[in-house]
Amino acid sequence: MKSTAGHHFEDFSIGQRFAHATPRTLGQGDATLYLALYGSRFALHSSDAFARQLKLPGRPLDDLLVFHTVFGKTVPDISLNAVANLGYASGQFRGLVYPGTTVHAVSEVIGLKENSNRRTGVVYVRTEARDEVGRTLLSFIRWVMVRKRDPHSEPGEVWVPDLPESIAAHALHVPEEIDFRAFDSSLSGSRFFWEDYEPEEKIDHIDGMTVEESDHMLATRLYQNTARVHFNQHAQNQESHGRRLIYGGHAISIARALSFNGLGNALLLAGINAGRHVNPLFAGDTVFAWSHIVDKAELPGRSDCGALRLRLMATRNLSCGGFPDKDAAGRYPDDLILDFDYWAILPRHP
Amino acid sequence: MKSTAGHHFEDFSIGQRFAHATPRTLGQGDATLYLALYGSRFALHSSDAFARQLKLPGRPLDDLLVFHTVFGKTVPDISLNAVANLGYASGQFRGLVYPGTTVHAVSEVIGLKENSNRRTGVVYVRTEARDEVGRTLLSFIRWVMVRKRDPHSEPGEVWVPDLPESIAAHALHVPEEIDFRAFDSSLSGSRFFWEDYEPEEKIDHIDGMTVEESDHMLATRLYQNTARVHFNQHAQNQESHGRRLIYGGHAISIARALSFNGLGNALLLAGINAGRHVNPLFAGDTVFAWSHIVDKAELPGRSDCGALRLRLMATRNLSCGGFPDKDAAGRYPDDLILDFDYWAILPRHP
Amino acid sequence: MKSTAGHHFEDFSIGQRFAHATPRTLGQGDATLYLALYGSRFALHSSDAFARQLKLPGRPLDDLLVFHTVFGKTVPDISLNAVANLGYASGQFRGLVYPGTTVHAVSEVIGLKENSNRRTGVVYVRTEARDEVGRTLLSFIRWVMVRKRDPHSEPGEVWVPDLPESIAAHALHVPEEIDFRAFDSSLSGSRFFWEDYEPEEKIDHIDGMTVEESDHMLATRLYQNTARVHFNQHAQNQESHGRRLIYGGHAISIARALSFNGLGNALLLAGINAGRHVNPLFAGDTVFAWSHIVDKAELPGRSDCGALRLRLMATRNLSCGGFPDKDAAGRYPDDLILDFDYWAILPRHP
Repeated sequence: MKSTAGHHFEDFSIGQRFAHATPRTLGQGDATLYLALYGSRFALHSSDAFARQLKLPGRPLDDLLVFHTVFGKTVPDISLNAVANLGYASGQFRGLVYPGTTVHAVSEVIGLKENSNRRTGVVYVRTEARDEVGRTLLSFIRWVMVRKRDPHSEPGEVWVPDLPESIAAHALHVPEEIDFRAFDSSLSGSRFFWEDYEPEEKIDHIDGMTVEESDHMLATRLYQNTARVHFNQHAQNQESHGRRLIYGGHAISIARALSFNGLGNALLLAGINAGRHVNPLFAGDTVFAWSHIVDKAELPGRSDCGALRLRLMATRNLSCGGFPDKDAAGRYPDDLILDFDYWAILPRHP
Repeated sequence: MKSTAGHHFEDFSIGQRFAHATPRTLGQGDATLYLALYGSRFALHSSDAFARQLKLPGRPLDDLLVFHTVFGKTVPDISLNAVANLGYASGQFRGLVYPGTTVHAVSEVIGLKENSNRRTGVVYVRTEARDEVGRTLLSFIRWVMVRKRDPHSEPGEVWVPDLPESIAAHALHVPEEIDFRAFDSSLSGSRFFWEDYEPEEKIDHIDGMTVEESDHMLATRLYQNTARVHFNQHAQNQESHGRRLIYGGHAISIARALSFNGLGNALLLAGINAGRHVNPLFAGDTVFAWSHIVDKAELPGRSDCGALRLRLMATRNLSCGGFPDKDAAGRYPDDLILDFDYWAILPRHP
Repeated sequence: MKSTAGHHFEDFSIGQRFAHATPRTLGQGDATLYLALYGSRFALHSSDAFARQLKLPGRPLDDLLVFHTVFGKTVPDISLNAVANLGYASGQFRGLVYPGTTVHAVSEVIGLKENSNRRTGVVYVRTEARDEVGRTLLSFIRWVMVRKRDPHSEPGEVWVPDLPESIAAHALHVPEEIDFRAFDSSLSGSRFFWEDYEPEEKIDHIDGMTVEESDHMLATRLYQNTARVHFNQHAQNQESHGRRLIYGGHAISIARALSFNGLGNALLLAGINAGRHVNPLFAGDTVFAWSHIVDKAELPGRSDCGALRLRLMATRNLSCGGFPDKDAAGRYPDDLILDFDYWAILPRHP
């Protein structure tokens, strides 16, 4: 058999490594399509002239475009048979990525745990992306629930990795080449700098974006993510919800684009502390978002920018004026779809 | 509150100026996506080799792609709470725009008039687009109906600007660098030159294009136009029509692409005399178009090209063989969606 | 009348030649959109670094992107009034095409045959594509069923060209500049080389892709293919199926992208032996595919690669585990939509 139906839980072992296939050169065309898919308005990714004012050679690619591309590479080896993408941790963006960069990805299995129902198990992998000369672009841990080939197969090794609750601010990578001192907040579209945000602040991003089947499939194919739940309605008709599931990363990018309204100067992603897709998103749903300022931190050696730790929360068909969140027992309401905890870098007041 | 729900009618004053946020570099990827969204076939925008035959360095960007991008920049400041985009006037394209250009936009409020219902008012703005070195790319006037924050607020200043009925032909900008003498009408797809069109002529563009939700949202996000009526089905469910409204500029671009069939050599837009979206367009509708030759004019100092003044009329779900138009009282039939009066530049017979 | 409703069967004559309009420069943006439309993962078209390892200057454009673009050019002259696109033969890809190339197309009518119902006829054309300096990029024969203007018009000349059943392997063009000796099968995503495939082998490509109206129209407009059956729902409402028909080439590209799973190293298309769209595809259908290895051949002067002759079969809403095919009488089941017989070039074991 020369084609593959993907790995099952039994196929993974601790320490197993994958050099993922299909290296991908990301170009300006990818950046354009990404922009059109989400309507993102962060000035750094929209304007070469704006990027040059910050001493960059031109617009870098959106951090999430790079993230999704790397994620997509891992799917054929890791999550083709995933039931659910459970979470992210320890994500670190290691440098700005420019058009023309070729992205390679490698992953290592760092945890395994069969579920008590015996039909699925959780696989933890650490993924690292490198460019064509071997420079690390980003790394992250994710864990997914993967079907077992056979519910009766013997449980194998069990190892649940100890994951940090967050990335320490001093461990964040801030691109050396960027200089925010000439930052123009009228062009950026937000007059709020790093100093203007305080922990515990909540921001309703107000706007809503309705998702169509065609949109999320176009995006997910752009990332060369082949997980079948996103594409194959004929197969999904057999599932209880009967729908194509939207790639979780699509929801992250929609929420991030919406967050421009209130966080227009949160230009760079520096780290992913944690992330969970807490409910599924389907075509026809309208996504709303709000942000919770969790923490703020100075950045070593930088007086021109600072870091904000943010929880980006997204809902379906529910405005976020009431800041919907998990309850005291940690249960998420049905309308919440995303709880994404990340570090962003913002310019400081000049 | 760090996010914004947009300006209301009370927030505007005559002479108020906006330097709009999010400068945007337009590249070849934008041109490609624009082409795929509309299926445009004008040879000048399709082929670098064709453009070089006309002494240009390569394909310029489609004039309407630039127009929509500039329009999109103005939305967060001007029309986020617009009920309707009422009209355009005095549009002037000041030069060819090439991939790599960064577009900035500024606007000035030139008119204000509260409506008699006290719930809305009309805002007139003059918008100018400049590239990264300050060269003017285009300018136009538009007026929109904007909600008042409070129906009981006192009416403010009233000023309705005197708008020219059309741009005089001698005031049109013709790009100096283009030379139509080597124009190849077999490659362009039309054997009709400027001389072949006469005032009062009507052309049915025959073909129809059905619009999908995904198409118009992808286009409108490409233009970074954030007006919520286009994107948020959850909110639109509260409106009487219950639908997302399609950005009017999307209809203009569809009609313009359809107009290739009959006006294949109308390569450049030089001016927008007037434009009205006379009925809304919804997903699932099929757009048809016809053109009315209003006037023709020689261009000062140019023997290789001339100008045609055209009304581009678009309908929904109605073929244009009968040239549907407003009646004697100026009322538009329900099937008509667009009445767009512009100047195009066409090559003259060699 | 300056617009055209297209040619009818009576308008064609043997030996008639068309220099098709609207030359088209294909760029990296087109390659990106093509990738996003189909999710193709062939490494050669995805990574500049991978292409350079094979001694190329960078990623060439996908062969089918070029094919569809050329096909699109021919539509206004040949098949605007086509009822059905009946078949392809004698397709030859003559060289790798790189971003920046401008595609021109010319066609010659090589056969004509009125159908016995007197309402339609079959037109055979040979199309050749050239770049901006006249180098041949590809050529192919296709035949389409075209409406007559008048069922009572007199039958004209009848000539059915003698079409070869297939292209001889020794006549295939293999790009001289590509060198597969440094081919990395871990990056390509498949460990199967030319030697690993044998005639009569069948490969189920497993995955399915659901098609949306917006997807196929975006693709077909990208190719500037204006055939109205793909776009005009208002007109299609008058047809018995009442649906927009999906451009057959869209199905070929979906099936080709799915075939990566099992044929990941079938990087280049060298020839099209035959091709038939045996049933229509509509939005909402899910496409599956399987491949039949028909033949294999060494390539003159090349020890680094070989050719496989493949039938790429696509279905709608039917998994291909049972390898559905025509029956002994040559009748295709209703679920089969495509029988596409082509030559692919694969690397040999190093």
